[in-house]
Amino acid sequence: MPDRPIPVPALPDGLDTPALVVFVDRVHDNVARLQRDLDARGVALRPHFKTHKSVRIARMQVEAGAAGLTVGTIGEAEVLASAGLRELFIAYPVAARGPKAERLRVLHETADLAVGVDSAEAADCLAAAVRDSRKPLRVVVEVDSGGQRTGVASPGDAVQVAIAASRAGLAIDGVFTHGGHSYRPGGAGAAGLDEVASLEAAARALEAAGFEVRVLSAGSTPSRLLAAEGRVTEIRAGTYVFGDRSQVALEAIDGEDVAAVVAATVVSTGPDHVVIDAGAKALTKDLPAYVEGYGLIPAWPGAVVERLYDYHAVVSLPGGTRRPEVGTVVAVVPNHICPVVDLVSTFVAVDADGRLEHWPVDARGRSG
Amino acid sequence: MPDRPIPVPALPDGLDTPALVVFVDRVHDNVARLQRDLDARGVALRPHFKTHKSVRIARMQVEAGAAGLTVGTIGEAEVLASAGLRELFIAYPVAARGPKAERLRVLHETADLAVGVDSAEAADCLAAAVRDSRKPLRVVVEVDSGGQRTGVASPGDAVQVAIAASRAGLAIDGVFTHGGHSYRPGGAGAAGLDEVASLEAAARALEAAGFEVRVLSAGSTPSRLLAAEGRVTEIRAGTYVFGDRSQVALEAIDGEDVAAVVAATVVSTGPDHVVIDAGAKALTKDLPAYVEGYGLIPAWPGAVVERLYDYHAVVSLPGGTRRPEVGTVVAVVPNHICPVVDLVSTFVAVDADGRLEHWPVDARGRSG
Repeated sequence: MPDRPIPVPALPDGLDTPALVVFVDRVHDNVARLQRDLDARGVALRPHFKTHKSVRIARMQVEAGAAGLTVGTIGEAEVLASAGLRELFIAYPVAARGPKAERLRVLHETADLAVGVDSAEAADCLAAAVRDSRKPLRVVVEVDSGGQRTGVASPGDAVQVAIAASRAGLAIDGVFTHGGHSYRPGGAGAAGLDEVASLEAAARALEAAGFEVRVLSAGSTPSRLLAAEGRVTEIRAGTYVFGDRSQVALEAIDGEDVAAVVAATVVSTGPDHVVIDAGAKALTKDLPAYVEGYGLIPAWPGAVVERLYDYHAVVSLPGGTRRPEVGTVVAVVPNHICPVVDLVSTFVAVDADGRLEHWPVDARGRSG
Repeated sequence: MPDRPIPVPALPDGLDTPALVVFVDRVHDNVARLQRDLDARGVALRPHFKTHKSVRIARMQVEAGAAGLTVGTIGEAEVLASAGLRELFIAYPVAARGPKAERLRVLHETADLAVGVDSAEAADCLAAAVRDSRKPLRVVVEVDSGGQRTGVASPGDAVQVAIAASRAGLAIDGVFTHGGHSYRPGGAGAAGLDEVASLEAAARALEAAGFEVRVLSAGSTPSRLLAAEGRVTEIRAGTYVFGDRSQVALEAIDGEDVAAVVAATVVSTGPDHVVIDAGAKALTKDLPAYVEGYGLIPAWPGAVVERLYDYHAVVSLPGGTRRPEVGTVVAVVPNHICPVVDLVSTFVAVDADGRLEHWPVDARGRSG
């Protein structure tokens, strides 16, 4: 499948490569656009922090109207809570044992926290972790809407988990799902429908069992508008803030909205390839079946990032292409931006006037 | 291809997962064994720092007899030089422009540095960066021995690069290569032979052109002993220190010598799969063609790490397997350890008595 075009702004001079470069105006536009679209539907936006891991961008999202932040780990939540961003949902079935139990207890006291749950065992661990708290911990039951990852398989199972959680002393907020099957070409429509239907079915079952269901939380970037329907109350898209080559390939965002690239330098040239200094430790080996190579280089049409080593990428060039010289700096659009951000301590934030700042990746490496 | 067995020690209790766990006694054994094997051949060992990025392990290697360290980036060299480990070879064709020129200048003054070069353009940049220094910068000409990544294509090209570098004021130390084609099942033997032959041919050509060739530097972990032949003076293996699933699959190391695993916790269970909390941000999506799935779980025979998300791994279990419970902690042997180490700020170092320490990954993220 040929790539749709991804026009990216010129890179600033003098970058020390490899570098993650973020175009701040595009980030602002992406944040504002999705907020506006969801406001118009009366659905809350709780963006996923794991994409950018930046407190500054999280604040931008909240100031634009986000209802709080979604995180994937206790560690990400700790970073946000320390920064004063306390309206947090850990959309993950946390197994709160050992050191995590104590971390969860402290987090629960310092933040306005909800946590995902998809089993009675995990509910018991969560309840034990916060047993000495004066406020109940809120949980949201995860439902599998077709992604076949986490989440209960049926509305009946959702009721069983909710009963177990409730008996253990947890407060039931509602239900959530992640339509992971939206990450297939053309899959977002069906995944969005599945998300809405699964959440509504689980909500009805919970209500029939006597639970109040305040939250029906859905969404991925591909399904972010498609799932904002029916009784769904909030969307948890994350990648929309930066975009990446996969999202463009899936037609989930436009190429003009890609807001993050990896800047790399040509370090070596061969007869029909060049080597750039963004390897697996800068681009990751994320390689969805629907793209070719480990990233897109908009400035070099037809080039393929064929092989990645820790610090080398071997890029093949189509016949007849003028070979770039050693020292040339080029932008690479990563296949998947989320793990790329986790590789750097700071990124280069460029504004519309070309001014640079270094912004910290505050939650880098907070993978647990 | 079924995996060869990888027996790993029991994990310590109370780990906060995901966690990189290193078995220190195995590291000591791996360091001592290769040093002994190369000492017996009269070939120097200059281990690659990029695998462990730990100053403490680098010191262990030097104390065992290593002739210095190999690094892939200026950033890694800066970390070692700051720690007083100054005998450094950047085995990479550094394009010393912009900020890198100044960093290289400082590094050259503070360390005993050699740098890879495979083009006249890069040689000119290196020379310009150190033009005010009172000592010449030493360079080593990279030769392609079949890996088709970096390095000149022929002995004649090696001479051309050496002449350009010499005219620019750089000192020629010798030649180096990386037999990247050793990373194929059964490929190490041929790659080792190719490394020796390519280096010797390039050395002869340089000598015929009047250069003194002191260094013939070869090696990857699969070819570390196979390339320690003929005129080869040093081996730059890196991964041998920790090992990984790929090295075992390639029969480059024994399963008993794997010294690093990722500890993960079961967070969710399905009818024929479980989900553990080591995703792409803990294991990476490195997936060589000769292994199945994103890591090996020695405790669960037949299990396959089928899918990775940022914080989830979906692990399929063979029919009839007893399903592990939520909260179970399990060791995963990564496919490729080098990028895994770069994801964490510290690892858990366990000694033979089960005592734990947290060791910093000093050069984490120093990818440029």
